[in-house]
Amino acid sequence: MKSLDTIPIYQNKMYFCRNVIIMAKKNQSKRLTEQHREHHGAVGIFGEEAKLHDMTVGKISHHIIRQLEEDFPQLVFRYRPSIEKKEINEALRKIDPELGQTLFVENASIIPDGGIIEVKDDNDNWRVVLVSEAKHQGKDIENIKSGELVGKDKNQDLMAAGNAIERSHKNISEIANFMLAESHFPYVLFLEGSNFLTETIEVKRPDGRSVTLEYDSGLLNRLDRLTAANYGMPINTNLCKNKFVQHDDKTIMLQAASIYTQGNGESWDVVKMFDIMLEISKTSLQILGSDLFNQLTKS
Amino acid sequence: MKSLDTIPIYQNKMYFCRNVIIMAKKNQSKRLTEQHREHHGAVGIFGEEAKLHDMTVGKISHHIIRQLEEDFPQLVFRYRPSIEKKEINEALRKIDPELGQTLFVENASIIPDGGIIEVKDDNDNWRVVLVSEAKHQGKDIENIKSGELVGKDKNQDLMAAGNAIERSHKNISEIANFMLAESHFPYVLFLEGSNFLTETIEVKRPDGRSVTLEYDSGLLNRLDRLTAANYGMPINTNLCKNKFVQHDDKTIMLQAASIYTQGNGESWDVVKMFDIMLEISKTSLQILGSDLFNQLTKS
Repeated sequence: MKSLDTIPIYQNKMYFCRNVIIMAKKNQSKRLTEQHREHHGAVGIFGEEAKLHDMTVGKISHHIIRQLEEDFPQLVFRYRPSIEKKEINEALRKIDPELGQTLFVENASIIPDGGIIEVKDDNDNWRVVLVSEAKHQGKDIENIKSGELVGKDKNQDLMAAGNAIERSHKNISEIANFMLAESHFPYVLFLEGSNFLTETIEVKRPDGRSVTLEYDSGLLNRLDRLTAANYGMPINTNLCKNKFVQHDDKTIMLQAASIYTQGNGESWDVVKMFDIMLEISKTSLQILGSDLFNQLTKS
Repeated sequence: MKSLDTIPIYQNKMYFCRNVIIMAKKNQSKRLTEQHREHHGAVGIFGEEAKLHDMTVGKISHHIIRQLEEDFPQLVFRYRPSIEKKEINEALRKIDPELGQTLFVENASIIPDGGIIEVKDDNDNWRVVLVSEAKHQGKDIENIKSGELVGKDKNQDLMAAGNAIERSHKNISEIANFMLAESHFPYVLFLEGSNFLTETIEVKRPDGRSVTLEYDSGLLNRLDRLTAANYGMPINTNLCKNKFVQHDDKTIMLQAASIYTQGNGESWDVVKMFDIMLEISKTSLQILGSDLFNQLTKS
């Protein structure tokens, strides 16, 4: 990450005056954002890597952790690719001993594509700051562009969408359980592919014929299979901060996944993903604020 | 349902003395249970139908609704095979207008295998009493019994388990959202097949060789993929009544699915399923008690 290496000066200043650091950080962050805008996902802070069309969400997570270390040098972060089901059970039992009792396969674990980023709090506990996954479903655009007809008799433009994406709910539920004691839920799910359109698009075949992909077609669209995970709140929105709703005599805490879709059928821009992931991570830190306070304010 | 038709006398008595009815009902229920025990899933209240090995959970639901009508003649029940996503959104919006906003495919709906049973409350609102699904995953027992080897080279006894079952979380989340305002969650998931064993079993091949299926093998067991839906609480347990747990300054409502597995690899006994479904339905009615009070006590 060359571009980040060019601005290490702010890190050193923190020992002298925190206020200056915060100002400096802001400028740095602004400058990085401008860099993103200018390079529009091509080079910018990712350098050569961003040219790779499908940079994995896991790789972006590693950039996020470096950015967080830059932005919050007072804090300690860690990345890990998985969480053991045992740990989830333990977290649940801490809330209530009736929970988190069952485990059938000893080493069962949850492996979100993009891994887990955590921060160490003032009591030396690791707290989740970001969990990310990226899913592609629906190859209609690719098929049409290459002129390939699909279906049993190879005579259709469009393939009836599958339901594999519904499996995403499993990891969302697991991480929600792991974070049941928290008031934030920094779970981000990036979607792309013809099953997640939010606008109707035209795709041209090599023979010149255009095929229309209606975003609201039951044959294609599978976004409704996911929105249970955000209680039907808007997609493409940071829902990291848990919502507490009131009904009759009870308060209900909602842990909503932040679902982002590339609604025009194009691939995700790596820099846009980075920006979203960074924003959600920072929301987590803000909500965890009182448990990070000592580290943030020690001089 | 002939056997139920033989005891309609109690229904008529309700107009004269409710207490007698309740007594009568109790006896009737006991008698039915005894019938179940005696016939052990063969004929009993299901008659010839129960001989069909795989009576669907939807069919059993229809028997449940008739039983509920018998046991609670003061109440009105209905069965439906699906719930529209629109209705779920509406239920969510009633709790908070920020929820339940998104719908991409106009007629999207949730279709649990066993359908939905509802009761009409004192305010003429339909309230969910039972939602059921039954899933089979893992054909190892069948394969071994028939002497069929599996895998790429057709030389393995066991097939690495798939992950399709994880899709179950989708419907669970949808119904949990639909019932967010309730204090009960009567969602029952019946599992069978070699991926859901809770005990190690031996299966004999036609050539006499025995194959061991270890219940805690990571290759086979997929129960851990589901237990996020009950917060790791015990399986084979009625978890219909929502648990409220306390953490710091907040109360969290848990909507846990009741997961039942046929842990020895055998098929579900239809009468056992019926008993479980009836028990969960009755728990729902009990929790809804104050909203059914007028109907239950009118004479």
